[in-house]
Parts: sequence; structure tokens; C-alpha cells
Amino acid sequence: MSERKRIVILGGGFGGVYTAIHLEKLLGRRDDFEIHLINHENYFVFQPMLAEVISGSIGIMDAVTPMAKLLKRTKLHIRDVEEVDLKNKVVVTSPGFVPKPHRVPYDHLVLALGKVTHFKGMPGLPEHAIPFKNLGDALYIRNHAIHAIEEADIETDPQLRKELLTFVIAGGGFSGVEAAADLNDFLKDIALRHYEAVGPEDVHVILLHSQDRILPEVEEKLGLFAAKILEERGVQIRFKTRLAAATKTEAILSTGERIATRTLISTVPASPNPIIEKIELPKDRGHVKANLELQVEGSDHIWSLGDCAVVPHPSGKGFCPPTAQFGMRQAAVAAHNIVASIRGGTRKQFAFKGLGSMCSLGHQSGVADVMGFHISGILAWLMWRVIYLSKLPGFDRKVKVTIAWLLDFFFPPDLVQLKLFPMGAVVQEHYEVGQEIFHKGDLGDRIYIIVSGKAQVSVEDGAGSEKLIATLTPGEYFGEMALLNQTTRGATVRCVESMDVLALRKQEFGALAANLPDLKASFEKKMQQRLQGTASGK
Amino acid sequence: MSERKRIVILGGGFGGVYTAIHLEKLLGRRDDFEIHLINHENYFVFQPMLAEVISGSIGIMDAVTPMAKLLKRTKLHIRDVEEVDLKNKVVVTSPGFVPKPHRVPYDHLVLALGKVTHFKGMPGLPEHAIPFKNLGDALYIRNHAIHAIEEADIETDPQLRKELLTFVIAGGGFSGVEAAADLNDFLKDIALRHYEAVGPEDVHVILLHSQDRILPEVEEKLGLFAAKILEERGVQIRFKTRLAAATKTEAILSTGERIATRTLISTVPASPNPIIEKIELPKDRGHVKANLELQVEGSDHIWSLGDCAVVPHPSGKGFCPPTAQFGMRQAAVAAHNIVASIRGGTRKQFAFKGLGSMCSLGHQSGVADVMGFHISGILAWLMWRVIYLSKLPGFDRKVKVTIAWLLDFFFPPDLVQLKLFPMGAVVQEHYEVGQEIFHKGDLGDRIYIIVSGKAQVSVEDGAGSEKLIATLTPGEYFGEMALLNQTTRGATVRCVESMDVLALRKQEFGALAANLPDLKASFEKKMQQRLQGTASGK
Repeated sequence: MSERKRIVILGGGFGGVYTAIHLEKLLGRRDDFEIHLINHENYFVFQPMLAEVISGSIGIMDAVTPMAKLLKRTKLHIRDVEEVDLKNKVVVTSPGFVPKPHRVPYDHLVLALGKVTHFKGMPGLPEHAIPFKNLGDALYIRNHAIHAIEEADIETDPQLRKELLTFVIAGGGFSGVEAAADLNDFLKDIALRHYEAVGPEDVHVILLHSQDRILPEVEEKLGLFAAKILEERGVQIRFKTRLAAATKTEAILSTGERIATRTLISTVPASPNPIIEKIELPKDRGHVKANLELQVEGSDHIWSLGDCAVVPHPSGKGFCPPTAQFGMRQAAVAAHNIVASIRGGTRKQFAFKGLGSMCSLGHQSGVADVMGFHISGILAWLMWRVIYLSKLPGFDRKVKVTIAWLLDFFFPPDLVQLKLFPMGAVVQEHYEVGQEIFHKGDLGDRIYIIVSGKAQVSVEDGAGSEKLIATLTPGEYFGEMALLNQTTRGATVRCVESMDVLALRKQEFGALAANLPDLKASFEKKMQQRLQGTASGK
Repeated sequence: MSERKRIVILGGGFGGVYTAIHLEKLLGRRDDFEIHLINHENYFVFQPMLAEVISGSIGIMDAVTPMAKLLKRTKLHIRDVEEVDLKNKVVVTSPGFVPKPHRVPYDHLVLALGKVTHFKGMPGLPEHAIPFKNLGDALYIRNHAIHAIEEADIETDPQLRKELLTFVIAGGGFSGVEAAADLNDFLKDIALRHYEAVGPEDVHVILLHSQDRILPEVEEKLGLFAAKILEERGVQIRFKTRLAAATKTEAILSTGERIATRTLISTVPASPNPIIEKIELPKDRGHVKANLELQVEGSDHIWSLGDCAVVPHPSGKGFCPPTAQFGMRQAAVAAHNIVASIRGGTRKQFAFKGLGSMCSLGHQSGVADVMGFHISGILAWLMWRVIYLSKLPGFDRKVKVTIAWLLDFFFPPDLVQLKLFPMGAVVQEHYEVGQEIFHKGDLGDRIYIIVSGKAQVSVEDGAGSEKLIATLTPGEYFGEMALLNQTTRGATVRCVESMDVLALRKQEFGALAANLPDLKASFEKKMQQRLQGTASGK
């Protein structure tokens, strides 16, 4: 019993889950090792089908499979990884129902933490861009888009209406292109069917891509074909354009152009999971360096694979691309070699060189670049459906997706908007010069604290022209008067130097101010000063 | 054109949606009135099937229908109602993407706002009890229950394990009984199939009911039968017991008993939507008084129906019960009479006397009390499925639910846990005497502000016994030291007088303290005092 080894896998994507599946097979009837897997979610996301969740052509649950169904002999820890202690061979996870640390010791460690979309250092993106990476993102995008159309249907201000009906997607790789195609089809379809004041021609989906053609993963001809198909359906593509910054109401492009929008989705840039950054192991531009045996350089019990690792390409040129087909096949080799290092035996080398790529463009069209063949149109779309259906893990999922695809032929798309994401009590917002944070007469629903940048407060004087009454700098707050005294804003606040703010909701601000006497006194003092300032005309 | 009347319906339940459906029919090819409906969600919830969303025997979206599909000629406003201005005949809604009030004027107003579960005045219930009323609640309960089982599977503390596996449901009416039956079946099934350390016998579902038998809506014999079925499947029923209070870890009963649990669901008490409270109209115990023509007493253009209204029972005895069958049929009469009052013509009187009641107990069992017949077992369950399927609005929904029910025979239940509900940044918690808020050595993840009650802070002295170092009262805070200086708690805090607190998450507290100099100074001063106090042994 004391000889039993413990293998701990971090990450539940293609790399992690398939490593566990292969380890379970190799375990067979023996009992000489145990398998643990730590992941934030209790399900495995089949990334290629995620875009179809946006349009609802498959059910919310159909693109994911519960890990407990796939892994019968693996102990699952549905937690976040907080720390990896290489010296003591222990993984520490986030707390569960009680605030106690949970420690999982290991003999062998498999790092398969994948990538995350990260907007760090890009002004306004962490606050205002929606990533498209996991199931929650897909649902959020769907619900947000439906909400925007519903609001546009009752909105009378033409500028706001246009913002609500403009949808910007950054990144022309597979996931950006599939999201743009799906969102465009879905929104134009429901606009046609269900909204009196919104038609398909009012919906604008804009795709931004940094290079001069989309889908760099496939052959040039196919990328051009895909762009043509998207443009025929009304998607606007901006080539050689990156997203530079964002505010609540705008996407600001590298070209200087500003697109007024309330929906900004970004599939780029991606970088390895932040946990990888904290682990001291040999790395190449942030990715863990693993060899063709999937072992981390210089270690005999740490393994890494999938998108968080750099693994040499078996052809000898470059590295394996961050795709599902490579992750799944690396997993088989890693599992074999881990068992070989426990039981003894020869090791395998990773030898897979790739099969090709496919991208669905919706409406029975797609592109595929498979084993040297370049295919486009309905044949590529059919290949996409057949091949991915066969790869989707779990027999029940295969049946459910098949049924969903059949029903999708007969029934119009669904448009239930699940309001599952309550507005945060404390959120960060980014403003650019000239933007209004709020206008005189607006409802007072939040108080703002300036983190960086500058704002000006102005009121209208008797003659209808604006009068500046204050300039606010970091550490100062505004908007408290409407919360404490009245329901609408008495002044207009405008950003005069690129600004980050913390916005605190009325309800929570009230609760804090009521219960923290020092905070309340400080606010009341400030308010008194401001009221006197306004009254005396200063 | 100026003659065109505007009918505004508040509420998207059975009463509101069916009023709009009937009005659309009566509108026909004419154009002499327009229909508006205001509701918080963009979908209609088919309440009878909501419990099946908990177990996943139907899909998440299957129990709801998008209103835009049901109502082709009704303008939908997906907003909350904030205020009804009877004098100016205007409804004011909550803001959408921008903080501006949205005003909808009306000629005829239909109040069909239904009921809400309200826990006001019940200690700890607003903070710790989960209502079961809408789709979000059903999903939340499902996800929370799966989370609890997953945590129990890796938990080594037997007390916490027991709390995690105990599920308490208050209210033995239809919705409580259906929720208890479904949750019990689902959890025992997944415990059997998927979790190594949790078996069906470890799962405890407890139903609380204030009377001496459950299901007061049906004949006594059927109530007894339902209780027997539930108990055979392992549900514990506590009769003559109400929920009196709750904390994060306990359900406190009217009998004085305390049940340690991390999942407390309450289907009682229900009261009319709070908006009704603010409207000055004739009322009976909070419900709007309407006559058999569904007109509100003393008004010629305000109508009310469904659960927020009291309508005399056509038999002459008592009032209509708050059920879907009455709401739907009241809607037909209300629509007719509104059109009669616009176009002229005779009015109708509400004459429906009820058909009976049905309750599904899952696992092919149920009870039904229909037109004088008392039916139980598989026949009642079949009736339930056939009748409710026929009532479910929308042909696509009927097909989808039928398929889901068929698949449910062949495939085991799903257990995807959607983490769509981020922990609030600022939450309220309730503690009873003797409970620990946190213990020395716990991870410091929140700071607490006392709203009411008292707490004591203690540390262990060298000999291992506890030493009291402070008593804290309202307006004081604790827990800030672990956030600012270290990661684990240095002291234990215990409630010594029934206490309400505001808990502020580490991240948001950090952001506020960093950006509000006054707040930071106040915290630092207090912390300095405490550190000196501890050091000198005071």
C-alpha cells in the first residue's frame, strides 16, 4: 500500500482529461497508482462546439461533458489551483465551503492548465471586453446579445440604438471566426422574426483581424473563401487592425478608428494559465518546456502537455500547435510514460504530425484543410459536423447533439435570455477623454472612485451654458449626492484624462456607509463642502 | 390614430401572458389598440415543470418559452417595474444600458405581477435561504447541490461532510414536494453512480411542513399517499414544523431543533410582488381587489388577475386559489372585458370553478385530484405528464420536452455544474450565539462589518487555552488583519449575541482601501491599536 503512487493532473481540458482517460486504461485491474485531477469546473468543454452555444443550435449542456462520467477511477477536486509547492510535492487549492486550505500531495505531477485570454495592460479591455473561452463566456455572450437587441427594440435615441446593434469581435482565428459567423446568423435571424423595430439590416457584426487574411491556421485560398462567405452574409471584416483599448461604449482600434458598441468580444491574446507563471520550471516565453516524452526538462516526475507547454514538433521543425488534436495525442504518450516510470518499461516518443484543420462558418458552409486537401463549402461543413461529432466524448452527448442539429432544421432559434449574471457590486470601468460618466438628470445608481486619470464636474448655469465646478483626481469620488439626497444626477461628470474608476452600486454603498461610521463621516464632510461650493457659485 | 388605445400589462406569468395572447386574438385585423407587456425576464416560466430542471430530466430551456415567440403583436419591455403613476397613467421601469428612466404611458393597465417568496423579518432567511420560484432559482439549486456533493466527496471532516449532504426544504405544498422528490431522486442517483466517497445512504433530504399532512391542496388520502411515497424513497418529513431562522450552517426550526446544513430551500412564505404594495388601490391583505369582471374596485381602466389579485370564487364561497388554471382563465375574461370597454359590447363574468390538482412525485408516481376523482401512483404521474405537456405553450417546447423525457429513460442524469453565480463582493450573513465566524488558521478571504449583535475575538495563549482579547459591537469590523498582513487568521471570532454582518471580499476591500485614503487611514489606525493591544496582552 505504501508503494502506491499518486498522480495529480492539473487542468481539465483536452490534455488533462485525456491523460486521465489513458491512465485509467493503463491502470487496468492493478492498484499501484491513483489518479487525481484538479479543475475549476466539473465538466470538460468541447471547444469546437462552443460557438454553437451562442446561437443555441445545440443545447447549453451539449458542448460539455461532466468529468465524473468520463473518469470513473479518477478522484476529482473541483477547485482552483492556488499554489504548486514543488519542494514538498504538494498542490494547494482554493477553499471550498469553509475557508481552509486543501492540500493534495503528489508523486507525479501533470501540468495541463491550458491558456487563458488575458487583457492585462490593455486599457479598458479587462473591464469591458468579453473573453470567449469557456461555457460561461458563450452563455454570457448569448444573453448579452439578446439583451442588446431587446433594448434596441424599445430605444428611441438613434445613437444608443446603433451602439446596441453593433457587435465587435477581435481575433480572426478559428474561435473568433466561428463566433462571428454564429452570432451574425443568430442575431439577423431573430431580428427578422421577433422584433418590430429591429431588422436584420440593423445588426452589424464586425470582425477585427491583425493580419491581411483571416484563419492563418489554414491554406491561403481557404482563408480568402471564408472571408468572402462571411462578407456575403454581412459581417464586416477589418484586416490589419488590432483592438487597442476599450470603454463601456467603444472599441478603440490600432488604426485610431473608434467603433461605438455595447458588445465587445475578444478571443485574443491568449497566454498560459497564470499558475504556470508562478511555478519555477524551465520555460520558453511563459510555456513549460517539455520534451518528446512530455517530461519537463530536468525533472523525473513532472510532466506537461497541451497549450500551457512547448513540445518540439516531431518533424523537427518548430513546436506543436496549441490544438485539441495535439493535446489529445500528447496525453496518450504522457500517460504511457508516467506508467513506464512507475512500473518500469520502455518509454514512447511523441510522433504525431497533425491531420489538418477545419472551421465551421454556419449555414451549411465551412473550410477544411485535411491531409493536403483543401475543401470549402457544404462538404467542409459536413466533414466538420461528422468528425467533431465522432470526437465529442460520451454517447449521450453524441445523441443529444444529433437531435439538437435535427431540431435546428425545423424550429427557429430560441431566444431565452438567462439573467444569471448579476451586476457586480463593485466593478472597474475605463473611460477615455471626452466621455461622460453620467449626465445631469440621469438616475443615480452608482458612486465612483477615481483610481487613475482626471474628471471634471460641470453644471448648467441659468443661461443654459455649462459651468465647470470641480476637477477630480485619484482617490476622489463622485456621484454620492444622487445616492444620498435625490434620485437623479445634479451635475455632469466628464473624463478629461484617460481614467480608471471603481463603481460601487447604490445598495452596497448604502450598506457600507450606514455601518462604517468613519466612512460615513468622511463622505458627509466632503458632501457638505461640495454643497457649499455649489451654492456660493465657487 | 389618436383614438388608438394602449393596454399595458405588468407581469409575464400565466395571468399576464395569457391576457396578451387573448388580446392579440381579439385585435384580429383591426388596429384600434396596442398591447405592451413589461416583465423582468424575456421568457414565460411554465412553473409546473420547474422542479424537473433541478434534476435535469428536462433541459434548462425546456420549462420556459421566449415571450417573443408567443406574442407576435405585443411590444415587450424587458425591464423591472419601478413605479406605477396612477394619476398620470404612466408606468416607470428600471434603466437598461444607460441610467435613464423609461416611461410607458397607458390607457388600460393590467396588474398581473404574481407573488414573490419573501423572507423579510425572518432572521437569517434573506441571507441564507434559497427561494424556489423562477428558472434562476431552479438552476441555482441544481448547481449548489452538485457542488455540495463534490465537496463532500473530498471532505475529511465528518461534521462538514454531514452538513454538505443534508438538504432542507421548507414548505410541503406542490412546489416544495416536487422539489424535494426531484432533488432526492437526483442526488441519490448521482451519489450511487459517480462519487467514490458518497453513497445514496449519505444523502439526507428533509422536508418541513407546518401542518400535520403535506399537500393541503389535495384530498387528505392523497396527501398521506404522497408522504408515504416520499418517505419510502428516504425523504424525511417533519410535520407541524416551520422554519424559524437560518445561518450559513443551520436551519433553525420552530420546534427549537437545529439541522446542520449547507443547503436550505424555502418555498414559503409568498406574498404579492412588492410593487403592488406601493400602488394605492383597494386591497385585501396585500392583494388587489378585483371583481368577477377582473376590474379593480372603483376603477374603469385598471384590471388585476392571477396571484397578485383577490377575485371572488364564482361559487360564491371564498376566493379563487392562486393557481395557473385560474390565472389562465381569468386572462380570457379580462381580455374580453378590456376590449368590450374600448369597443363597447357586453362584458363577461368569470365563471370557472376549477378542475382539480396534480402533483408529480417523480419515479413514475404522482397524485391527482381531478373532477372528484382521487388518483395516485403511475396513473396520476402519466396524467400529470400528458396534461402538462399539452398545456406547455409552443410546439417546439412540446417536442423538446417529449424528447428529453424519452432520453431520460435511457441515459443517467447529467451533472454539469454551471458556475454562473459569482460570489457577491458584498454579502450579508446572519450568525447565532456560539457560532464561529472564523477560526485561527483559516484562510483570510473576507473582512466583516457588524450591523447588529456582538462578537468576541479570542486567541490561544501559550498553554493552549483561549484568551478573550476584544468584544465587538455594531459599526466595528474584524478580519482586516489577515487581509492586510498575512493569509491566515491570527484569532478566532465567535458570535455572542445574534448577529448580522456585512462581509466584503478580499479583492474588493483591497481595491476600496487602496483608493479611498480616508478609509485606509481609518483601517490602519484601528489595526495599529489592535496590534498594540495584542502585543501588550490587553
